[in-house]
Amino acid sequence: MFKKFKIPDATIGRLSLYSRYLAEADEKGITTVSSQNIARATGVTPAQVRKDLAYFGEFGTRGVGYNSRELYNYIMKILGLDKRWSVAIIGAGNLGRALTQYKGFQQRGFDVKCIFDNDPKKIGKKLANVEIYPIDSLEEKVKELDINLGIIAVPAPSAQEVADKLVGAGIKGIINFAPINITVDGSVILRRVDLAAQLEYLTYYLEET
Amino acid sequence: MFKKFKIPDATIGRLSLYSRYLAEADEKGITTVSSQNIARATGVTPAQVRKDLAYFGEFGTRGVGYNSRELYNYIMKILGLDKRWSVAIIGAGNLGRALTQYKGFQQRGFDVKCIFDNDPKKIGKKLANVEIYPIDSLEEKVKELDINLGIIAVPAPSAQEVADKLVGAGIKGIINFAPINITVDGSVILRRVDLAAQLEYLTYYLEET
Repeated sequence: MFKKFKIPDATIGRLSLYSRYLAEADEKGITTVSSQNIARATGVTPAQVRKDLAYFGEFGTRGVGYNSRELYNYIMKILGLDKRWSVAIIGAGNLGRALTQYKGFQQRGFDVKCIFDNDPKKIGKKLANVEIYPIDSLEEKVKELDINLGIIAVPAPSAQEVADKLVGAGIKGIINFAPINITVDGSVILRRVDLAAQLEYLTYYLEET
Repeated sequence: MFKKFKIPDATIGRLSLYSRYLAEADEKGITTVSSQNIARATGVTPAQVRKDLAYFGEFGTRGVGYNSRELYNYIMKILGLDKRWSVAIIGAGNLGRALTQYKGFQQRGFDVKCIFDNDPKKIGKKLANVEIYPIDSLEEKVKELDINLGIIAVPAPSAQEVADKLVGAGIKGIINFAPINITVDGSVILRRVDLAAQLEYLTYYLEET
């Protein structure tokens, strides 16, 4: 088996893109695709597509290409998306609400099962059919609802405390949207999503124009 | 001068991280940092830090390190952040609202100047002191307010139409949060932020555990 931790982060991001293209191709009845097809649809080079896939074994037939559905299924398995995941969102502010209602999660196998907040006015209410619980009940609810992943959508000063609670409740994967660096135990996978950094990819290229 | 389009995307993302660490170091009065310091704070290897910086010239003194403030200023200039940028958000739903109020933007030089929506109940109202305008006035307002960047936060079926309007209004940099691929003229920098893909970085690593 391949060594998960030796694969570049960027490859994982591209596998995600490839799988979306393959799903579309399969839906349209396109049974075979080439690395050129995948490359064109996802904005990378065919060599990059082949290199990314080569980390995980041998795919496709030279001169013929890849079977769309087979490759899709294999990539989804690599990404851990051959099963569904249960997600908790912490913070029922605007961002937490937007994430709860984000259509893209369900499509890819992520079910938001609960939201946590410390505002008594919000607790007990529902957002898109998902109940808001008090932050104090996090550990209990995470176990009861069998939550796998946590999304931190609280203001920066509370982010570390929330992360500690998630780790304490046994959560192994955390996304942090708060604009601050937090730390977790090495056995937990933590990813920070910095929304300003997304804009910086634009300004980097626009700077001279 | 270095060739902007030859630098890997991942390097740009890391420069953004380095600059945040350097800002913190400078604030704490740390005038000199090593590639080890930068690496430890941002979760990469020292060799990667040196490689990323080497794209842009020679920095630091062997055995001494980098001057925190000088390197910070230089990276900010590379990222186009030595000036402020004016941002329009399209879509005043939950995500658009969350982005309008996101504290991380202002810190890095991004000012949300206007929001656009097509819901008459929202038009004319303000969110965090930013006015919501009708989508039909986009071209006019973009010019009047000298907007540089557009953020698409509308439902997937409307995303391409909104992108076309932004390009028509002369916007050169666009972030798309809608869970759909859109296309723009080659002279426009477009970046899609896929929130589900962020979770897939977690499940990739968690899959076997």
